[in-house]
Amino acid sequence: MKALILRKGDEKENNNFKHPAVVSEIPLPALNPDNDDVLIRLQAAAFNHRDVWIRKDAYLGLQFNSVLGSDGVGIVEKTSRDESSHLVGQQVIINPGSGWEKDPKGPETEFGILGLLPLPGTLAEYIVVPRAEIFPVPDHLSVAEAAALPLAGLTAFRATFTKANVQPGENVLITGIGGGVALIALSFISSIGANAYVTSSDESKIKKAIELGAKGGVNYKEDDWPKKLKALLPNDRPFLDSVIDSAGGEIVSQTTKLLRPGGIIACYGMTSSYGKASYPSTTFTVPAMMDNIELKGSTMGSRDEFKRMVNFVKEKKIKPVIGGIWHGLENAPEVFEIMNKGKQFGKLVIEIN
Amino acid sequence: MKALILRKGDEKENNNFKHPAVVSEIPLPALNPDNDDVLIRLQAAAFNHRDVWIRKDAYLGLQFNSVLGSDGVGIVEKTSRDESSHLVGQQVIINPGSGWEKDPKGPETEFGILGLLPLPGTLAEYIVVPRAEIFPVPDHLSVAEAAALPLAGLTAFRATFTKANVQPGENVLITGIGGGVALIALSFISSIGANAYVTSSDESKIKKAIELGAKGGVNYKEDDWPKKLKALLPNDRPFLDSVIDSAGGEIVSQTTKLLRPGGIIACYGMTSSYGKASYPSTTFTVPAMMDNIELKGSTMGSRDEFKRMVNFVKEKKIKPVIGGIWHGLENAPEVFEIMNKGKQFGKLVIEIN
Repeated sequence: MKALILRKGDEKENNNFKHPAVVSEIPLPALNPDNDDVLIRLQAAAFNHRDVWIRKDAYLGLQFNSVLGSDGVGIVEKTSRDESSHLVGQQVIINPGSGWEKDPKGPETEFGILGLLPLPGTLAEYIVVPRAEIFPVPDHLSVAEAAALPLAGLTAFRATFTKANVQPGENVLITGIGGGVALIALSFISSIGANAYVTSSDESKIKKAIELGAKGGVNYKEDDWPKKLKALLPNDRPFLDSVIDSAGGEIVSQTTKLLRPGGIIACYGMTSSYGKASYPSTTFTVPAMMDNIELKGSTMGSRDEFKRMVNFVKEKKIKPVIGGIWHGLENAPEVFEIMNKGKQFGKLVIEIN
Repeated sequence: MKALILRKGDEKENNNFKHPAVVSEIPLPALNPDNDDVLIRLQAAAFNHRDVWIRKDAYLGLQFNSVLGSDGVGIVEKTSRDESSHLVGQQVIINPGSGWEKDPKGPETEFGILGLLPLPGTLAEYIVVPRAEIFPVPDHLSVAEAAALPLAGLTAFRATFTKANVQPGENVLITGIGGGVALIALSFISSIGANAYVTSSDESKIKKAIELGAKGGVNYKEDDWPKKLKALLPNDRPFLDSVIDSAGGEIVSQTTKLLRPGGIIACYGMTSSYGKASYPSTTFTVPAMMDNIELKGSTMGSRDEFKRMVNFVKEKKIKPVIGGIWHGLENAPEVFEIMNKGKQFGKLVIEIN
């Protein structure tokens, strides 16, 4: 079968990729008769920033010759056990995580994400995964929309509901709108009747976010953005309840005065501090402590959270924003270039079969 | 009546106090007939670091001519309403906070602490407070022990149970043992069958903490203290569930590898970074985010938490550690000097009447 394989690169070009991703012919993955496995013919796969970091040598635990890709949707072609054979022909999306069943605190066992060995990737014609990790695709989603959902949807669901505990009527700031997680978090938050506000350095992204349901947005390149954001908040609830943050750095001091006492900052990224210090970090301050603010690290979630996320998407008829669709794995280099420039708005998807 | 009054000082001496605290004669406070108030004859009051910061001009919202002191125990002498007159003669401890009834997230209204105007202080012969803020003294406590409980007990209770949600059998690190909050947190944690570990720069304080129930302790002046702490943890639970922290600074990176996924750092102080940067802070790192760790600011608590804390102390027969007892408000300067040097182990109490 054809698959997009991570190869070891020799040198790092500035702001470019170190390790190539090459479409190669590899053997069809085998079903393990000892496991309750399924073979899936992949219809589409989506890209994540994780894939960019991997190619840039900026991701822990790189394994060369891995099939890349964490997000996939496809049709069950074969099962390792007869009692699972009724699944053949069903369209499914795949939980991108492995080793984390249901503990809300974190993985019970060694956690892994599809797309780095020993786990297979979704940028391929076929994939074998445990039956427990697949779920039916909600009817209202196209193939590309289903492929766009898993990793971003799960990360956004955990940050929004498990960590920030967002409730109807609350005001929530989402930083860095345009990214896959931020955009699906916007849908989640709006769909329950909470008010989402966004930040971006790109005015056109703020405009698009407002079209998608955001109540307002501010440009974080302007020093007084917290003040401008405060002016956007409703008079009868002139504070933020939580922040869904991918920026890090000074986000705590920037939002402390906006947040209610005990307000939550769910932190799933720290992109603002890349290149600014030896290590990216988020600074937690004394005024934040005095206001009982909680800064919660958040990652992908458990299989249980994935299942609840898919059900939530089905119930609320949520559609991930698609930033582009390509046909065929050979388009991967172009998609990587777009991801690297950060100009996309929504998920980038490759249709495969 | 006699009271310890904060006066405005003229210049700041190095490492010493800017503002004097002077025993003065002031009018007996009046009961407001519009409120359900009680007049309490104070038997004892305890000191907190807050009092030191106030005198050092390092506390926000200083109000000169305030009666100092946040912790007090005494006898109800008089009530503003007849329906409260059955309380006369009862020994009570006073909730040191004001404006925070029960919201676990934070104060519902303007929050204040006894000992800065407009709120009265406890380092006086008498105090008037709302009836709602007083609670019967648990029988097993001496006058000095009861006076030592309020602010430290409430802060420790919120950090330990509301924020860190400590459960029996868990492993909890308490940084900076010797302080009032850290010591009462040690009692709380041990009393429910959780394992407390401590840090200090003073080996004798670690030894005393172990005598009080700590499972072990390490000297944080040694660079490899996290490694030494790891070696102390039980084989069947070789990780920390939470940290009750007053140090800040690098505590997150120091404990990330020790904490379980989703582990909690309840942060009620940042003493380690005083004098090291423009502003004290705690650095939250990418590895902590990837481990779903939660850094939660924690302060004093609500009236509801105070009530539950006093009941808990009564039920578990917990006694605050007393570091010293003086008789008479005129000893206040000596107590302040000891507090300033940080050499005490336990709460410092002045018996008044």
